[in-house]
Amino acid sequence: MVKIGIADTCFARVNMGEVAAVAAKEYVSSSSGSESGSADGALEIERYTVPGFKDLPVACKKLFSEYGCDIVVALGWVGGEDIDETCAHEANIGLIQCELMVDRHILKVFFHVKEAKDDLDRQKEICIDRVRKHTVNALKLLEGKEVLSFSAGQGKRQGYDDAGSIE
Amino acid sequence: MVKIGIADTCFARVNMGEVAAVAAKEYVSSSSGSESGSADGALEIERYTVPGFKDLPVACKKLFSEYGCDIVVALGWVGGEDIDETCAHEANIGLIQCELMVDRHILKVFFHVKEAKDDLDRQKEICIDRVRKHTVNALKLLEGKEVLSFSAGQGKRQGYDDAGSIE
Amino acid sequence: MVKIGIADTCFARVNMGEVAAVAAKEYVSSSSGSESGSADGALEIERYTVPGFKDLPVACKKLFSEYGCDIVVALGWVGGEDIDETCAHEANIGLIQCELMVDRHILKVFFHVKEAKDDLDRQKEICIDRVRKHTVNALKLLEGKEVLSFSAGQGKRQGYDDAGSIE
Amino acid sequence: MVKIGIADTCFARVNMGEVAAVAAKEYVSSSSGSESGSADGALEIERYTVPGFKDLPVACKKLFSEYGCDIVVALGWVGGEDIDETCAHEANIGLIQCELMVDRHILKVFFHVKEAKDDLDRQKEICIDRVRKHTVNALKLLEGKEVLSFSAGQGKRQGYDDAGSIE
Amino acid sequence: MVKIGIADTCFARVNMGEVAAVAAKEYVSSSSGSESGSADGALEIERYTVPGFKDLPVACKKLFSEYGCDIVVALGWVGGEDIDETCAHEANIGLIQCELMVDRHILKVFFHVKEAKDDLDRQKEICIDRVRKHTVNALKLLEGKEVLSFSAGQGKRQGYDDAGSIE
Repeated sequence: MVKIGIADTCFARVNMGEVAAVAAKEYVSSSSGSESGSADGALEIERYTVPGFKDLPVACKKLFSEYGCDIVVALGWVGGEDIDETCAHEANIGLIQCELMVDRHILKVFFHVKEAKDDLDRQKEICIDRVRKHTVNALKLLEGKEVLSFSAGQGKRQGYDDAGSIE
Repeated sequence: MVKIGIADTCFARVNMGEVAAVAAKEYVSSSSGSESGSADGALEIERYTVPGFKDLPVACKKLFSEYGCDIVVALGWVGGEDIDETCAHEANIGLIQCELMVDRHILKVFFHVKEAKDDLDRQKEICIDRVRKHTVNALKLLEGKEVLSFSAGQGKRQGYDDAGSIE
Repeated sequence: MVKIGIADTCFARVNMGEVAAVAAKEYVSSSSGSESGSADGALEIERYTVPGFKDLPVACKKLFSEYGCDIVVALGWVGGEDIDETCAHEANIGLIQCELMVDRHILKVFFHVKEAKDDLDRQKEICIDRVRKHTVNALKLLEGKEVLSFSAGQGKRQGYDDAGSIE
Repeated sequence: MVKIGIADTCFARVNMGEVAAVAAKEYVSSSSGSESGSADGALEIERYTVPGFKDLPVACKKLFSEYGCDIVVALGWVGGEDIDETCAHEANIGLIQCELMVDRHILKVFFHVKEAKDDLDRQKEICIDRVRKHTVNALKLLEGKEVLSFSAGQGKRQGYDDAGSIE
Repeated sequence: MVKIGIADTCFARVNMGEVAAVAAKEYVSSSSGSESGSADGALEIERYTVPGFKDLPVACKKLFSEYGCDIVVALGWVGGEDIDETCAHEANIGLIQCELMVDRHILKVFFHVKEAKDDLDRQKEICIDRVRKHTVNALKLLEGKEVLSFSAGQGKRQGYDDAGSIE
């Protein structure tokens, strides 16, 4: 059984936590389905919602220390101002520090408004694609440290099409 | 019973600590009022005032380790110069580090003068709104990690109107 | 009895450590004088001089761990080049980290040459005012976490006139 | 026997992990060959592939704590946008922090797209040269702290020709 | 007896480690010479050479934890590109963090190419002067925390003439 933590925010303009939960269930269902036809009991989800993305590091820490998660996806929506980018930088430093304290992965899934300024539909599209792909990445990382090695150097992207490897 | 720490500064041009204390009492009073008609004993406040916002991280640490707070609101007023922004960055890195050391939340409530340069009334207005909303966020976080999930992805803002979710 | 650490540098162009020592003695003398007429034994000073301000964090750490200081004033003079500002940023991150490790305050007192480029008299004036005011702040912080609360939100400044509160 | 960890990413557009593995085997083979004619058993490799380079710090930590590596090469491919550079900065801070926690070296091998924008062949060339040279550096560091001293001050470069010493 | 660590790099274009070793021996020889006429056994040097300056923090950590050094000089040569400056920033954050972990000084001696772009002779001159002066600073710091206080506020510079104190 795998326990994934999903940390998200009220600041985000897309329900990233819900997107991650659906993606996690779909992945586990399809994975176990191909083996046993049932995913019951294979996945447990712990949700933790905080006001803004600077609150994510300690939320992730608590998901590990108090709720026993094996891995966490930290979901942030970064506003379009310079101050938002600075805050995202602070949050990422904290998230990496948290990982080093607990020896577990946190997938740092941040959508930046400046990626698609003034195009709300595109913002949502990039955000959802990134959350879904990284949620799957999280679950794959739990399967072993070389599970992703077959994709190493393949220019994989989340929120965009893959860049591909340079031949 | 809930014990909230309020860390504020002499550098600020608004009495942010007092604003937070009033907001905390109002929230607890209205919450418990709807249940039992009395908030007596439901809230304890520890105030800690330091010179500037770079002194906030260790003040928060002491509010946890020496005064037994469950959560802290760290209230900073960031001046309009570049050096002020750099200092705010340093303070935020320290505040997040503190959270990771004690496994408790610090609501990082910073007003930046550059948000409303040359308009003192607007400065005060944004600042007070932000302090009040984040004080309530702090108290809600203590009620459970999914209490804010109903607002996840709703584009909540402090100091401004909510941005709302992208439909 | 109070033991204050004074960490200063050879890089500075003003003897900031001496200024702090004098200010500390004056404050204690005037405080105790109003009560008992004598400040003998009320204050102990530990001085630590390092080459530059990036050496201050560990000097402060040692003032706590090896010399038993209750609080430290870290006195830095930041040159006028970009690299100096970067170094000041690094030093401040380290000073805050130190505070979190020992649960004690370090007053981070940095004068930046860019505050008064090409005006040496003004540089010295700002520097001395800042050192004196923050030395007093340090001693007040030791008297209790709410001693400064009566000045909260008053727009207090060191090196300049107070900005005052916004009415 | 030497155990080297190789941490790489799916984000990279070159299979940096594979390049490092080959370089490590070649170095050990040529080194031991000159002594005993056989490198069997002289080298063990642990591979760890993560989605992006911000996932490298904790992967390295686990390569030390869970897989007993003596040293790790952390292989990152940094995209051409500003946000990529910021992320690389965060990753490097985390990698250095990891080194300090475990008292072991991590060779931080990052290729930046901006080094050869729009020239994919050159990107690959720089990247491979850097990975190969730093993999050898890693293995040499394990042989003793003065093994590289004969090259001290020689202006050694990875990805480019050596700059040489200033005579 | 004093044990000084000298951490240097292959990236540097001047043999900074050798410069430091010579300066340390000269200082100890002249100091003890004035007292006893012999410096035999008064100084022990541990050299540690790494590829680049981002490898210095953990090398310094090991010089303390594995080789029992009392103090370390960390010698870095920072290239002329923006990325080099960013790396220097990362290294300095790590070096300060290391100092706080072990409660010992690391003299952070970095030469930046941008100090004398396109003038190799001047680069070497600044670099050597800085290394020599900071090596002496290191040895003086070991003699006591107030040994440098007579130079406090004197505007001391390494690599350049002293700025002097403002009278």
